Order: sequence, then structure tokens, then C-alpha cells
Amino acid sequence: MSEPPSRSEQRQAALAYHEFPRPGKLAVTATKPCATAADLTLAYSPGVAEPVREIARDPNAAYRYTNKGNLVAVISDGSAILGLGNLGPLASKPVMEGKAVLFKRFADIDVYDIEVAASSPQHFIETVAAIAPTFGGINLEDIAAPHCFEIEKALTERLDIPVFHDDQHGTAVIICAGLINALKVQGKVLESARIVCLGAGAAGLASMNLLLSMGARAENILLVDSKGVIHSGRTDLNPYKQPFARETDRRTLAEAMVGADVFVGVSGPNLVTPEMVRSMAPRPVVFALANPDPEIRPEAAHAVRDDLVMATGRSDYPNQVNNVLGFPFIFRGALDARAKRITPPMLIAAVHALAELAQEPVPPEVLAAYGLTALSFGRDYILPKPFDPRLIERVPPAVAAAAPCEG
Amino acid sequence: MSEPPSRSEQRQAALAYHEFPRPGKLAVTATKPCATAADLTLAYSPGVAEPVREIARDPNAAYRYTNKGNLVAVISDGSAILGLGNLGPLASKPVMEGKAVLFKRFADIDVYDIEVAASSPQHFIETVAAIAPTFGGINLEDIAAPHCFEIEKALTERLDIPVFHDDQHGTAVIICAGLINALKVQGKVLESARIVCLGAGAAGLASMNLLLSMGARAENILLVDSKGVIHSGRTDLNPYKQPFARETDRRTLAEAMVGADVFVGVSGPNLVTPEMVRSMAPRPVVFALANPDPEIRPEAAHAVRDDLVMATGRSDYPNQVNNVLGFPFIFRGALDARAKRITPPMLIAAVHALAELAQEPVPPEVLAAYGLTALSFGRDYILPKPFDPRLIERVPPAVAAAAPCEG
Repeated sequence: MSEPPSRSEQRQAALAYHEFPRPGKLAVTATKPCATAADLTLAYSPGVAEPVREIARDPNAAYRYTNKGNLVAVISDGSAILGLGNLGPLASKPVMEGKAVLFKRFADIDVYDIEVAASSPQHFIETVAAIAPTFGGINLEDIAAPHCFEIEKALTERLDIPVFHDDQHGTAVIICAGLINALKVQGKVLESARIVCLGAGAAGLASMNLLLSMGARAENILLVDSKGVIHSGRTDLNPYKQPFARETDRRTLAEAMVGADVFVGVSGPNLVTPEMVRSMAPRPVVFALANPDPEIRPEAAHAVRDDLVMATGRSDYPNQVNNVLGFPFIFRGALDARAKRITPPMLIAAVHALAELAQEPVPPEVLAAYGLTALSFGRDYILPKPFDPRLIERVPPAVAAAAPCEG
Repeated sequence: MSEPPSRSEQRQAALAYHEFPRPGKLAVTATKPCATAADLTLAYSPGVAEPVREIARDPNAAYRYTNKGNLVAVISDGSAILGLGNLGPLASKPVMEGKAVLFKRFADIDVYDIEVAASSPQHFIETVAAIAPTFGGINLEDIAAPHCFEIEKALTERLDIPVFHDDQHGTAVIICAGLINALKVQGKVLESARIVCLGAGAAGLASMNLLLSMGARAENILLVDSKGVIHSGRTDLNPYKQPFARETDRRTLAEAMVGADVFVGVSGPNLVTPEMVRSMAPRPVVFALANPDPEIRPEAAHAVRDDLVMATGRSDYPNQVNNVLGFPFIFRGALDARAKRITPPMLIAAVHALAELAQEPVPPEVLAAYGLTALSFGRDYILPKPFDPRLIERVPPAVAAAAPCEG
């Protein structure tokens, strides 16, 4: 085997990928003939007046005559780009274009990336609401908590198309699917699992809320933020953390971890020690999802426990919690159903579809795509692989079937 | 020859073109490899962090690593869609997608169509300013006068990318190029031409202003709106019409037309009578540009004058004044020069490039594209044909060369 590429080589490869042969990762193409003058009389004047009149008469006709029904806006203000922080809207553009590539690759959804320079959450909301007629759905991305909650709520209430903050709900769906399967591998169930979540931002709060709606018990969940355990004595909690305040005398992450069945980390690198993992209940589940450096390295965790199921956000370890398993298929289902919202039952349908898929035998083409000879449900395989072609067959129909009938 | 298609057949063809095999006219595609997991580590996490960091360090890097530099937003509020009026943002979507098709077909520019539901001109301005980081340029479209002037001015001042209202400046460029050549054919010059313009909205005002900056004399221009000649006694003029108020006792269009060298109509159907054309100066120029029904039909005008040069907005008569001759190439030049604005010298450069191209011999492939055996500069050929491949070679470099050096 050749040497793995150095950090500098990886950097150069990533920059070259983005720069050549033309800058960026997206292009817009015409889907209809436009070679001749006659074509253009249909594409533009005078032919275009016909669909204009139809849509003026019935707004639903936009789904027949324009790209609206298959078009999602991936929108960011750049306030929480990956793990890099608030670098502003322009710097978020490569990420949003990348998200568009994933939407297209996995679910054939067209995406316009939109980077918003907003002076306030209200300005952001007014901007997105104003451009919403363009789109069949809105995917909010890399927006810092707690503004992201207010923004998503306001837009969901105002718009008649799905609004989805992937860092909340997309992440939550994958975490929940993985956890259900990890607990199954460990012979445990969600209803009695004691859960510690480190990180009380978008991903942490949405994941715990989704777990609650799927049967986890509120009294079994301890949320930990940068100031420690969220308990009823805290006076510094925003309204989104408040419901997770517990009557407990545990104060530190280390105290919270003692006897826990599940740890979910959506925080930062190296915040969990081997001793904390050692203190967990028998057959524990550790999701150390900080990227690129997890809360604890799998090697370090496995060194102190041999009864562990572990997942990370990285592709170079088993059980990658990867949002690409969710958002393309959730939106595909929502667009196909022409849902006005993405509701909790639709998210739960996605969770179950993903969890069940991982329990099935893996087809040879999936093994081949990953250079594997065998893979079966268990400790090292609790979530489907992103290039599994069954995802697009299973998840969108499940999501669409769970969409409310709104006529 | 077979029967020409009926009105109903044309309507069905236009709707079918928009609906099948998939709704709308645009798709978004990935321009970089995204087949394998390795590809995706470059397109998205973790590789995408590299261009993010570069852009955070230097905003100009967005032109190297994202699609910004070749991406134009075509934006409307739907307040003046074609000649159909204020039908709202959603109904404008087929037109904006059509415009995107033309940008792509003629200048390989990627376009996101954006339809804006704005509660006020200020809301529209704030919305467009907020999403501007996404784009390398902004093309405003089908926005009613006089709001369009305020909107364009505010955005031009605020943004560091070109903002262009095609209904004003794109139209003005083609009209001016056509007029210069029409006057040449008639043995006249702009400096002494007496000009009547019917229609004092976006196109009329911008065209007259561009003619003024190219040498037309203010005292030779009479602007006529729905209330008649714009004269110094009028008290109902908005600030954009005010500079055109003349000391004159002419009050009606018919009075204005007597002795005029040039008529430019950007108004509505059948507002010009054969008698008015008969009253014009010898060797007159009549641009009857209302679409689809001109201010006067060419047949009717030619019936009363045999010394006429005439243009319309229609493709089924000679001398079509067609915006597609302008906006793709003007933006191509502006983007190539990375101009921060589209300035009057850039517009004038486009006018001259178009006018000069029409004076050159027509290559065989252009004749073939239009099923013609001959075409040469003169009464029936004062503007290039849209499918002339020399347009992309001539107009953008001329526009780019006229762009101010702004470092």
C-alpha cells in the first residue's frame, strides 16, 4: 500500500477539486430543447405566457409548469459552519454547494444554495419568507443555536412548504436510528435506557426531543452543556434547554456518566475520558459524534470496555452517523407527497426505515462499493451505508406515507 | 406548406413544453465527480473545510472555489410580467426560468431564478441585498416602474456585484444599437434626430437616457405617456420623467409625431395611426416594440410610407428588437471583468459592438439557422440575429474592456 496522503496533500486535493476545471461544484442546465428559435418561442416569449396565466389562475400549477416541486433551497447565514464557527455567509458557500451535490446525488433533488447576509434573525426570516415562492422546500443549514430554533419555528408557521433544519432534525433522525439499533444489539430498549447527551445545541436538543417522542423517558435523560449538567437549579437556561432541567445532584459530565446506558456526544473533541466510559452501565452505547475529532477516540473507548457499541461522525470507523442518510430521502418523501411540513411522524418513519434497513442482509453491490467482503447487523453495522441503493427505495416512501393529508 | 398552428395548438405546445417530461425548464447538476465515498470527502466533509477557510481569510477566494463568479440571480416580484401585468411572484417563475435558459444558451452563465414575495420595495431591497453573497451578479426582471428605479438604485449602491434591470438597460442597449443603424440606413445621425418616445416606464426612460449619453439632444426628444406629451406645464410627473419635461405646445402623440425622424414605442398595441406615420419627417424610423401587438403593424406603416425603416419586438418581422441580443453578453463581459457595476460606458460598448456586427457580412451558418439565402446591412437588417455565433465573441470583450478598473 502507498503512504496515506499527508495533511497538506489532502488540503491541496480539496482545493483543486473545488477550483478545476471550473470554480465550484454546481451548474444550472436547461432541461428542455433550446437549440432553435422555435424552441425559444416556447421557452420564453411568447410561449411562456401560457404557464404564467395558468399559475396566476391556480398557484398549484407551479408544480406542473416550473421546477418548484423538485427544488430545495439550502440556506445558511454562515453562523455555525461545520465545526469552524461563525465565518459568515460567503464562507459557507462551499458547504451549501456540497449539500446541493449530496441532494442531487442521492435523491435527484435540485438545489439552489443561498447564502444570506442577515443583520438579525428577523431579517433572515423575512428574507427566506420572501424568496420562498421559488422553492418546493427549505433546508436550513449551519445556523447557530439558539437563533436556529426561532428561525425554523417562524418559517414553519409562515410558509406552506417544508422547512427543515438539517442540523437539528436530520442529525436527530440518524442518531435515533443508530441508537435504536445499538440498543437492540446490546439487548436494551429505549424506554428504560439511561441517556447522557453532551451538547445542548441544535443537534443535541433535537435528538433528545425525537428520542422522547419515540419512547425514551424524560427522567432518564441528562443533558450536559458547557456549564455541566442541566438541572433544576440552573438559572441560565434558554427556553429550549429548560424542559431538560432535572432534579438531580449530579453536576459534572463524569457524574452524569456513571451507570448510563447511552452516551451521545454532539460537542467537541476529547471531552470524554476512558474513566467515564468505564463508569457506564454494562453493554453501553457511545456515540461520540464531534467531527473530525470525537469526544473520545474509538481506540481509547474500546481499550477500557469490550462490551461497547460505538459510533462516530467519521467515515474511517464503523458506524458513521452521517446526515446524508437522512436529508436527501426525507426531502424526497416530503416533495413526493407535496407535504406542507415535515412532521414528527415523518421523522419517526425515516428513523424506522433506516433502522430496519440496517437489519437486513447487505447486497453484494454495497459490499463492493465499500471494498468489503461481509457486513451484517451487529456491533460494527448499525446504520446503512450511504451508497446503499435501497435507501432511495425505502426511506422516501416511508416518509411520504407518514405525511399528513392536507388536501 | 402545412397550416400554421392555431392559437389553441400553440397554447398546448407551450404548456406541454413546460410540463413534460419533467416540470419546468431548469435542473442543477454537479460539475465535479461524486460517484464514490472518496469523492464526497472532497465535495463535502471534511474536504470542504479547506475552501471555507480560504474564503473566510479572503472573500475573493469565493471566485476560485465556488460557483459565485459565473452565477447570476434572475429576480422578480412579478409586478410587471411580460405585458400581462402584476400577477405576483409565483406566476413569474416560468419567465424567470426562461430567462435562465437564455443566459445559459447564449453565454454559458448559470442562473438561479428567484421569485420574491415582497411587502414593499424596501422589503424587496433588503431581501435581494441579503442573498447577494450567493451570486456574481443580479438581473432584475419584470418589476413595475417606478419602484424598479428605486430598487435598482438602492441595490447598486449597496452591493459590490453588478445589478442590472434588464427591462431598463438591456432593452435600451438593443434599441440604441438598432436606432443607430436605422439612422445610418436613412442617412441621418443621432445628434440631430428628432425623437418621439411613447411609453415612459422602465424601457422608455432608460432608452432615452442612454440615447442622451450617446449624443442625442435633450431638446430633440419628446416623451409621451398615457396622459400625452411630457411638457413643462405638467404637475403629475415623477422624478424620473421630470427631466424630460419640454417647453412645447404639443400635447398629443399625433402632434408630437409631426416631423419626427424617430418613433420609439414601448407602450401598447395600436396606439399609432397610419396618419401619424405619414406626418413624420422624410426617411423616418419607426420602432413599434409593444409585444405581441405593436403600436402599429408593419403592413399598415409600410402602406403609407415607402421610405421607412421599421423594427418590432416580434420574430416574424424583420428587425426584431430582442433583449437576448444584450443581457447574456453584457453579463458575460461584466462577470469576465469581475466588474462591480455595469456602467454607462459598458452599455455604450455593447451598443456599438451590436451595431457594428450588423454592418458586417453574415456568415453562411447564420443564414442557414434562419433558413435565409441572403441578408445584408440595410432596411431589413439593422440588428444581429440572436443565433449569430459572433455575438459571444464580440460583445462580452467589448463590455469587459469598458469596465472600470477597480482593483
